[in-house]
Amino acid sequence: MSEPFDAVDVIRAKRDGHRLTDAQLDWIIDAYVRGVVAEEQMAALAMAILFNGMREDELARWTAAMIASGERLDLSCAGRPTADKHSTGGVGDKITLPLAPLVAACGVAVPQLSGRGLGHTGGTLDKLESIPGWRASLSAAEFMTQLREVGAVVCAAGPGLAPADRKLYALRDVTGTVESIPLIASSIMSKKIAEGSASLVLDVKVGTGAFMKTVPDARRLAETMVALGTAHGVRTVALLTDMSTPLGRTAGNALEVAESLEVLGGGGPADVVELTLVLAREMLADVGDADPADALTDGRAMDVWRAMIRAQGGDPLAPLPLARERHVLTAPVAGVLTRLDAYAVGVAAWRLGAGRARQQDRVSAAAGVVLLAKPGEAVRVGQPLLELHTEDESRFARALDALADGYDISVSEVRATDIRVPDPGLTPPRLIIDRIG
Amino acid sequence: MSEPFDAVDVIRAKRDGHRLTDAQLDWIIDAYVRGVVAEEQMAALAMAILFNGMREDELARWTAAMIASGERLDLSCAGRPTADKHSTGGVGDKITLPLAPLVAACGVAVPQLSGRGLGHTGGTLDKLESIPGWRASLSAAEFMTQLREVGAVVCAAGPGLAPADRKLYALRDVTGTVESIPLIASSIMSKKIAEGSASLVLDVKVGTGAFMKTVPDARRLAETMVALGTAHGVRTVALLTDMSTPLGRTAGNALEVAESLEVLGGGGPADVVELTLVLAREMLADVGDADPADALTDGRAMDVWRAMIRAQGGDPLAPLPLARERHVLTAPVAGVLTRLDAYAVGVAAWRLGAGRARQQDRVSAAAGVVLLAKPGEAVRVGQPLLELHTEDESRFARALDALADGYDISVSEVRATDIRVPDPGLTPPRLIIDRIG
Repeated sequence: MSEPFDAVDVIRAKRDGHRLTDAQLDWIIDAYVRGVVAEEQMAALAMAILFNGMREDELARWTAAMIASGERLDLSCAGRPTADKHSTGGVGDKITLPLAPLVAACGVAVPQLSGRGLGHTGGTLDKLESIPGWRASLSAAEFMTQLREVGAVVCAAGPGLAPADRKLYALRDVTGTVESIPLIASSIMSKKIAEGSASLVLDVKVGTGAFMKTVPDARRLAETMVALGTAHGVRTVALLTDMSTPLGRTAGNALEVAESLEVLGGGGPADVVELTLVLAREMLADVGDADPADALTDGRAMDVWRAMIRAQGGDPLAPLPLARERHVLTAPVAGVLTRLDAYAVGVAAWRLGAGRARQQDRVSAAAGVVLLAKPGEAVRVGQPLLELHTEDESRFARALDALADGYDISVSEVRATDIRVPDPGLTPPRLIIDRIG
Repeated sequence: MSEPFDAVDVIRAKRDGHRLTDAQLDWIIDAYVRGVVAEEQMAALAMAILFNGMREDELARWTAAMIASGERLDLSCAGRPTADKHSTGGVGDKITLPLAPLVAACGVAVPQLSGRGLGHTGGTLDKLESIPGWRASLSAAEFMTQLREVGAVVCAAGPGLAPADRKLYALRDVTGTVESIPLIASSIMSKKIAEGSASLVLDVKVGTGAFMKTVPDARRLAETMVALGTAHGVRTVALLTDMSTPLGRTAGNALEVAESLEVLGGGGPADVVELTLVLAREMLADVGDADPADALTDGRAMDVWRAMIRAQGGDPLAPLPLARERHVLTAPVAGVLTRLDAYAVGVAAWRLGAGRARQQDRVSAAAGVVLLAKPGEAVRVGQPLLELHTEDESRFARALDALADGYDISVSEVRATDIRVPDPGLTPPRLIIDRIG
């Protein structure tokens, strides 16, 4: 009985609405990792936190304890400023792919430890693994060498960063305690702070395809994360960005790599380019006013991309996998496409093989959805709206089910050409909703 | 994957304030007993229930599922009406000991499955085990034979009654989810309903020595339990009774048996006699209007007691264990004893050896506290107030610590003899606070 606290007392304190003491917070995370606090005790505490929340300084200490459960990287070897970006996840969100080499090309090193996709949202590592030869796992030495020599690394996080979060995340997943803003914020920020970057930009998605469905919820999460980063000495900014419709014109692993290559080549969809540049400017805020847009048009970002892919064994010039089976969904009426729902497209891509239901599932590199029209565009009867890609044609039916209620075409908008009053429902939402930090 | 539900969906439904469906309730209890629902999942659900409560019909179904996890006894072999009593636990609460034989002597069979003490409250089985030879465990056949032939059985519950409650109770104990009225009510009532008695009287204690500290909390628990019993076809009544001061003049195992024998012999402290008779009248409500008080004075209750003890191997005439070490605490001033706190006395008796901190600890039969004065009585300087009994004199110091703030003597009440306005703080609280049912 050499433990300084009893887990039941800590659970009861939180249950009854008290702030846990610093000593209690330090102890409960450490004792949980050691197995002294049982899974059922942490589950009860997580549910009590979900109901009663945590005070700002309390959450900072909880997060510090999660960071202290593992190592915190020292990136001074990079020899230049460091900045990272984290997205809370969306459909068609391939921004990391052009962003990391772009920022590196402008003089700031990007050490990004990424995850895999789960459910309807894609994962950066899954996308990069569609490039022949590319590998996600690096040793610590490889990571540091690449960061210093190439300036950008996107790889899998090792088990040494915030192991308390790894254990807690798995527990929350099976106990209905995922949807707690303090627990979400501390999970993300413990890993990002442990990663050692001096600066962090958070892309907090809002809308049907995002974890946060409303602006107030997203704002609360963003404010909580910015406060946590700041409390730990990381310059942290958050953007709230729209995820009611997919980002760009692709959702799927190889499809999104191909679209990212368009952006790195100076082209690509306007929304992907806009968000990439906005995030890049935040990450470059400390290093003067060179416009990152130039690095997309003059090939510097593409050069870093190729070096980054090669450093991890990939062939940046090899052809990407293409799907054997395709199915085109056409517009049943003429009008204006007023809605193309991110969640519906995300589920369709998942069902076509691009996503996974469980951590251990494999994903298809070639599967996904190509958006041939975007909200706000006029369409003719029979015009292709979406192209579905898969390796297995038996998957089309359930993907089409997911899309059945996933879009609206406004007929009146075209017929009533004499009416000039714009319908607010027809205006696509702004991409950048707010900036916090 | 042949399970009809996912535990996470059930947890989230309760977390988000929904009523669980009958099918969900039946499944989660059954799947928990089968080990399909993990301890951490049930812990999260219990905490969500603690926060969001359960609707009356929802709780009835949850309780039915707990009962259905085991057997429900058929007591028709008793050959007469059956009635049981349950107390939520207090200090000096030995009422079951005189009550069970008294009610049996009046023609109603009492099948009481009891528990052991934990913390500052005593357990009926611990008290009876201070009688040489008496054993708590009976086979099902022994139980039924004794119920038919003697009319009263007080013994340990077997593992077959509400096994879901056994598992859930152990989980709640380590996860800070004990203090939930629906969970308390379903725990008590699942066992009591499974026991098969046609009628049930609940003694819900209120005050410092009780689990429920306030009348509104106790009333809510009582109403919830009465509704549950009624929903399951058991005639159920609850009394709210005072537990701000110990019941009777003893707290401790053999000490309480000795006091119970006084009551069975027609004497004993007024409060113990009063509560025994009030509860007996409730249990006898179905069998006419014979006054149970007569059975205490004419020896019939004592005859059943002796038969009941002998049937379980005990010698009702053998001397009870006496403590080797005694310490008397005297009044430091003259006045009126206005408060003698039940919790303080309970903790003192526990520290003297009468109670246990963990289920597996042994208790001392002889240890305990004798109350030589009760609230409302005048005391002289140096008059004995409490006599502490133990087998181990090193225990006196911590027992006296527990009692240091456990009593008040009002000096002014004696000095100001000319003042006739009664101080409401000096009036002992009513023993029977309310009746629900």
